Amino acid sequence: MRVLGIDPGIATLGYGVVEGERSLARIAHGAVRTRADLSDARRLVILAERIEGILAEYRPDRVAVERLFFKRNSGSALPVGQARGVALLLAARSGVEVDEWTPAEVKEAVCGYGAADKEQVIRMVVRILGLDERPRPDDAADALAVAITSLERVPFLARVSS
Amino acid sequence: MRVLGIDPGIATLGYGVVEGERSLARIAHGAVRTRADLSDARRLVILAERIEGILAEYRPDRVAVERLFFKRNSGSALPVGQARGVALLLAARSGVEVDEWTPAEVKEAVCGYGAADKEQVIRMVVRILGLDERPRPDDAADALAVAITSLERVPFLARVSS
Repeated sequence: MRVLGIDPGIATLGYGVVEGERSLARIAHGAVRTRADLSDARRLVILAERIEGILAEYRPDRVAVERLFFKRNSGSALPVGQARGVALLLAARSGVEVDEWTPAEVKEAVCGYGAADKEQVIRMVVRILGLDERPRPDDAADALAVAITSLERVPFLARVSS
Repeated sequence: MRVLGIDPGIATLGYGVVEGERSLARIAHGAVRTRADLSDARRLVILAERIEGILAEYRPDRVAVERLFFKRNSGSALPVGQARGVALLLAARSGVEVDEWTPAEVKEAVCGYGAADKEQVIRMVVRILGLDERPRPDDAADALAVAITSLERVPFLARVSS
């Protein structure tokens, strides 16, 4: 199974493609950036073109996106939401399954407990995928983590429900 | 000139189509609703299909969307952002011009001053468009207000810059 993880943002959108059954391998990771002087509409068109390109190039079986919560007063919820909406729409329309995981589910799947911090998650992503170095930017590492979550949890959930 | 105004939301997305030069006429208004028990991805696919249907049916010259600010702790910024991102993407991809107006610009254009309250805006929408009754739901009235804003401001801005 191959999973594309997406860490949505309008300025920087991280992505990571992971494949495997028992052992997991990184296929690709990176980030799409858009310039702050462009209109929201133009930035979303750029993100959409890149997401469609990534879906076409890597042909994932599933797309995984974190379920986000903004507890504090945050100016980033709206722009992140815009990018997340575009990613979810394009993934669903491409015909793949879309998984939404809470931050605690990602931490549990990657680190074994739901209260792990961000650095622990990135270190475990490096270890699980056998990488030589830390994936950059952090948005790409986060995208790999959410892709790993689908690979860990979907087969388990399938066994439980069958 | 014909403008489609959109008031984005994932549960209820309001739309309003307004046409005219000196006097403005309502062509259509309404709301698209999605069920809360569906996944975000599925709800966004439903919104996208309806937005594309509205664009195809009414063939607007421009699409107008409010520029939103969430000052307080708000659980709605992320879902509203998701719907707004989908609306902006589809509008831009359909080849029409996309206008983003601040709440103060909408109030100024519709009511003549930027501190008008929500009810004043709706009353003026009714008067400007010569409607027999208040547009429902409020999301549709807000969408008509943002469409009126493009019709008031775009010709003015074009004259100023020419």
